[in-house]
Amino acid sequence: MTISLGSDNHAGIHPEVLAAIAEVNVGRAPAYGDDPWTARLEEVLRGHLGETARAFPVLTGTGANVLGLSAAVPRWGAVVCARTAHVMGDEGGAPEKFAGLKLLPVDAPDGRLTPELVAPLLEGRDDVHRAEPAVVSITQATELGTLYTPEQVAELAAQAHEHGLLLHVDGARIANAAAALDLPLRALTTDVGVDLLSLGGTKNGALAAEAVVVLDASTARGAQVAEGVRRLRMSGMQLASKSRFVAAQLLALFDGDLWLRNARAANAAAARLRAGIDERVAAGLLPGVVPAYATDVNGVFVELPERVAAALRPGFVFYDWPGEPGVVRLMCGFDATEDDVDGFLEALTVAARDA
Amino acid sequence: MTISLGSDNHAGIHPEVLAAIAEVNVGRAPAYGDDPWTARLEEVLRGHLGETARAFPVLTGTGANVLGLSAAVPRWGAVVCARTAHVMGDEGGAPEKFAGLKLLPVDAPDGRLTPELVAPLLEGRDDVHRAEPAVVSITQATELGTLYTPEQVAELAAQAHEHGLLLHVDGARIANAAAALDLPLRALTTDVGVDLLSLGGTKNGALAAEAVVVLDASTARGAQVAEGVRRLRMSGMQLASKSRFVAAQLLALFDGDLWLRNARAANAAAARLRAGIDERVAAGLLPGVVPAYATDVNGVFVELPERVAAALRPGFVFYDWPGEPGVVRLMCGFDATEDDVDGFLEALTVAARDA
Amino acid sequence: MTISLGSDNHAGIHPEVLAAIAEVNVGRAPAYGDDPWTARLEEVLRGHLGETARAFPVLTGTGANVLGLSAAVPRWGAVVCARTAHVMGDEGGAPEKFAGLKLLPVDAPDGRLTPELVAPLLEGRDDVHRAEPAVVSITQATELGTLYTPEQVAELAAQAHEHGLLLHVDGARIANAAAALDLPLRALTTDVGVDLLSLGGTKNGALAAEAVVVLDASTARGAQVAEGVRRLRMSGMQLASKSRFVAAQLLALFDGDLWLRNARAANAAAARLRAGIDERVAAGLLPGVVPAYATDVNGVFVELPERVAAALRPGFVFYDWPGEPGVVRLMCGFDATEDDVDGFLEALTVAARDA
Amino acid sequence: MTISLGSDNHAGIHPEVLAAIAEVNVGRAPAYGDDPWTARLEEVLRGHLGETARAFPVLTGTGANVLGLSAAVPRWGAVVCARTAHVMGDEGGAPEKFAGLKLLPVDAPDGRLTPELVAPLLEGRDDVHRAEPAVVSITQATELGTLYTPEQVAELAAQAHEHGLLLHVDGARIANAAAALDLPLRALTTDVGVDLLSLGGTKNGALAAEAVVVLDASTARGAQVAEGVRRLRMSGMQLASKSRFVAAQLLALFDGDLWLRNARAANAAAARLRAGIDERVAAGLLPGVVPAYATDVNGVFVELPERVAAALRPGFVFYDWPGEPGVVRLMCGFDATEDDVDGFLEALTVAARDA
Repeated sequence: MTISLGSDNHAGIHPEVLAAIAEVNVGRAPAYGDDPWTARLEEVLRGHLGETARAFPVLTGTGANVLGLSAAVPRWGAVVCARTAHVMGDEGGAPEKFAGLKLLPVDAPDGRLTPELVAPLLEGRDDVHRAEPAVVSITQATELGTLYTPEQVAELAAQAHEHGLLLHVDGARIANAAAALDLPLRALTTDVGVDLLSLGGTKNGALAAEAVVVLDASTARGAQVAEGVRRLRMSGMQLASKSRFVAAQLLALFDGDLWLRNARAANAAAARLRAGIDERVAAGLLPGVVPAYATDVNGVFVELPERVAAALRPGFVFYDWPGEPGVVRLMCGFDATEDDVDGFLEALTVAARDA
Repeated sequence: MTISLGSDNHAGIHPEVLAAIAEVNVGRAPAYGDDPWTARLEEVLRGHLGETARAFPVLTGTGANVLGLSAAVPRWGAVVCARTAHVMGDEGGAPEKFAGLKLLPVDAPDGRLTPELVAPLLEGRDDVHRAEPAVVSITQATELGTLYTPEQVAELAAQAHEHGLLLHVDGARIANAAAALDLPLRALTTDVGVDLLSLGGTKNGALAAEAVVVLDASTARGAQVAEGVRRLRMSGMQLASKSRFVAAQLLALFDGDLWLRNARAANAAAARLRAGIDERVAAGLLPGVVPAYATDVNGVFVELPERVAAALRPGFVFYDWPGEPGVVRLMCGFDATEDDVDGFLEALTVAARDA
Repeated sequence: MTISLGSDNHAGIHPEVLAAIAEVNVGRAPAYGDDPWTARLEEVLRGHLGETARAFPVLTGTGANVLGLSAAVPRWGAVVCARTAHVMGDEGGAPEKFAGLKLLPVDAPDGRLTPELVAPLLEGRDDVHRAEPAVVSITQATELGTLYTPEQVAELAAQAHEHGLLLHVDGARIANAAAALDLPLRALTTDVGVDLLSLGGTKNGALAAEAVVVLDASTARGAQVAEGVRRLRMSGMQLASKSRFVAAQLLALFDGDLWLRNARAANAAAARLRAGIDERVAAGLLPGVVPAYATDVNGVFVELPERVAAALRPGFVFYDWPGEPGVVRLMCGFDATEDDVDGFLEALTVAARDA
Repeated sequence: MTISLGSDNHAGIHPEVLAAIAEVNVGRAPAYGDDPWTARLEEVLRGHLGETARAFPVLTGTGANVLGLSAAVPRWGAVVCARTAHVMGDEGGAPEKFAGLKLLPVDAPDGRLTPELVAPLLEGRDDVHRAEPAVVSITQATELGTLYTPEQVAELAAQAHEHGLLLHVDGARIANAAAALDLPLRALTTDVGVDLLSLGGTKNGALAAEAVVVLDASTARGAQVAEGVRRLRMSGMQLASKSRFVAAQLLALFDGDLWLRNARAANAAAARLRAGIDERVAAGLLPGVVPAYATDVNGVFVELPERVAAALRPGFVFYDWPGEPGVVRLMCGFDATEDDVDGFLEALTVAARDA
């Protein structure tokens, strides 16, 4: 039987989330977000993110990103992002297709934008030949398993605001980031100037639940973005009719500490995996195996000799990282066990020895 | 405590569907549709709809309609539909917004298109000033609770095909239609020339699960539409990462007869409600109360005097039908009980007497 | 040789317009609207339309409508229009395709919206299931050759504003309307509450020149719409690089009275044509010939027996009106002559006699 | 008085083009492309590009690119281009906005794609997470004033076709390329496997006229693309009603050798300018002045010390190249004179001396 380290969405539903779905499956309830659980969810998320936040549950991470960006970017606007960003490479062109958004991809080492990398795209604005940058979008934790510190986010927010742009965080794995930094969610978002958040649930134990969060809907600009998200959920095909069950999933995660427990579990498994690889590399047991990127959260990137990778494939699912031949991603979900990790390490050692 | 007759999506998840979700929540599985349950679902739906069908699970009914239509209509194309169609009035402009589709709405009594109503829109084609009709879209059962007979569908399909168009069925409630007509699903679709089906699950007991079905993917045109749907699920924000749980919902409904049991239960409740109203109207007990439209499936439309409606509102949720002042829709879900129905009839009788 | 009464865009370029193009064809000039003629044009149009107007030259009438509406309607918005409106039936779905705008077509006798016809579409707003009406769009003069009085426009504007909507005028033939009513342009627009104008040039003697005019850019809302139009001209493919030649065409028309002379000439020819038909009908000379709609400006609609139409086709070009079998449109351009008109009347009389 | 070397679209209309407009301004003519001049144009362009070509006149270069790409790319498709491509940086996001096209920009030295640069983007196709590359788009001559040889184009075409993609050429300056290479237009396009061409007219002496050309409409794929362009011209706001005047401009250029004479004149002026700079640099007369890129056609790129640039600005218009501080573009139109060039060289020498 194969063990999947392919993605954190290969995991199932956390039992507490499933129990929460069952718990609200009692009688009838208003649809399309008019149910009491959706209202309660907004309160809970305000507890995490601040009293001026407005939260809109949606069904997919792509939906969260695209709806948030659509609401924040005018019809002629553009979005600055890393070339490795999920919105750039993994959403099938949804931002362009749904909202005509132009993406301005930047080559960013380790998947992290910096003010220096963003600056050239903010020159020459008000040129009608160019789509006007309106949002800087970063991913926290990044697609390469790295992290922004709160200070780094604050710098990007300050730069964006100085130029009249908003800062968006694709937080499909923001729980993992908060767990790794041992900080509350707001320390990574509201408190450092983030305007718009795609708050992840699915990768962290939900069935299918994310939220678009406008972090300060008390400003004119924030209220406008929030109204946009509210309005776009139907045309964006993200407004579940039986909305209570989407809310229930996010309540299971965030009304309590399940979000943190799950993220910590995933991070811990990845840390164990990375430490195991590093030790074996140091001991000369893994010739040709080269870790790539830091393991800040729950992903481990490593370059494997082709024969090593081939030897591992029958027993393990992992992801060949596009654009970097030989590099694979090993992703730990909330349900990754020590046995999963140790089994992989053992198989890797054998494969490297025999290759 | 209020009783909701507001919509069939006020109902929760049918216990067998919830059990099916729990059942597949074992270990890890490939994501994005590469799991075995999604494959199994396609087999099951071929059993219902024919061996050349291809099925693509999605998350919302709007998603099913918009993705199917996007794949079937060229960039310069248009969709003929009834003005009361869900795609025209209830999807927030999603077809226009996501795919630039022009809708050509037709005023259709009882919500049903006929070849006579469609014909004028098929004249003057190949005129570059006009968006070219490429699909005729009907809803079965209609938004007004009425039905197309298989013969009526066949006539619309023949007309569409003669002009090079495809016929799409928004089947959010096709289970109710099949149950009412006591016919298998294919008798309403594949066998009468339907090309493209939005197969409903959510209103019939699922949490959030629908499917786009291309009914004959063995033809060049059908294969092209199927490839379009496959490709558009990500940019259409309808490809659940944990796809096994979407498949499991539809399997619970369609791999067996739960789809039919649920639809029959909903239809029976509506029939009881309608019969109760008709009897009381005939007996002179409901002055000013006038049934509207036939109750072919699970919706009952009735005009209520304002004071009667007002008297009922504290105890019952129902839907004020837009565009027809005084008309309300009473919708029975799979979970509607005889007590719900009889309670409403009693309250209606009292309200009408006291008004 | 055939005589065209097919459309006012079958006419060529008025000699004064062509001379104006030649006149600015001296040396080099800044491109993309930064030339002095474009600046001068805005001044001239402010003379016609008021000091707070902002004008953006574009290349086609469809471009003017779509850019103006795109700038005025939020991403989730809709446009109320007559079913006969150019934006609904003659622009190939450009509003839907370019901007995802949902059109809400209303059946309007004589092509004219009224507050009563618009009212039902303004009910039930703030319903996320529906695309939100943001603009009412009327055509002046209408596609059916009829006119709105200033009072009628004022009523529509008042209704729109009361509900937070803007009023747009598709003024491809607004010169003809102003000429017919013997009123300055602003009496039909700025002074009666119009917010946004597609100002026609091509049908009135230009080669290819129209303008989007935001009538009061001094308000926050107006400034926002103006900024949108400015920004969208490039992505809307409407920003001519050699912009001086577009400006020159509109200057030839509007910096002076050529716009009015041309419109009067076209209207006079149509009036002569309509009077000639009416006289002959009254005299019993045209059996089966039935005038349709009023001839308020430069279009004459008339129902012709099939054999009469057939007899006329070799000598005359006219337009079979879609959706009304037997009805043809006879359109007089600025260059229509008395000979054209009298020749048609004579041929019609002969054809009707011999039919 | 300033002398503009800012852009080839600062030039006016070539007198022969203006005369051609005047020549067809006789009487009335069918609109929207049904006139005889538009038909004649297609014949003429077939003479240049091959008998299977189909040509669709449009109004702007952005329009030509976007319509052609829209017709060639499926709804889920992407376009590979250089980061410096006009479609990427100068069209305000029109490809994304009008057609939801995702652009995949590649950093290309000298603005030229190569098979090696394109190859990584063709890996991992059929991954539903990614927008599928459907077209490779190159600019000939490039935005940096460089050229592709026919062999280089042929290699890109072969690679594209091998992967099922089409090759598009943005030929806003293809006349300059053909003139520089002393080759007929088809040697750069049809004969080396190009599928789709945006044929430039405006920069080469027209008022506003370009054409989308499908080079082999005799294949099923080509016919499909041609039908797409035909259909999309209206919704793409590119179908001039008075189409004869657009056709006349292109006839003036291409029915004869005006296209070549104009391109040669522009190229010759640029060559003289570049040679003059190179000589003076070699002679040590221009300290700090560094030519950038080859001057293959009519653009000269040169890095100027800030004080030199400042000294030149009162007398000359030139374009500060975005993203390369200090680099300016000097562009020669068909109307550039030896006096313009020599005047600039003299002023540059003085400015460099005094700086």
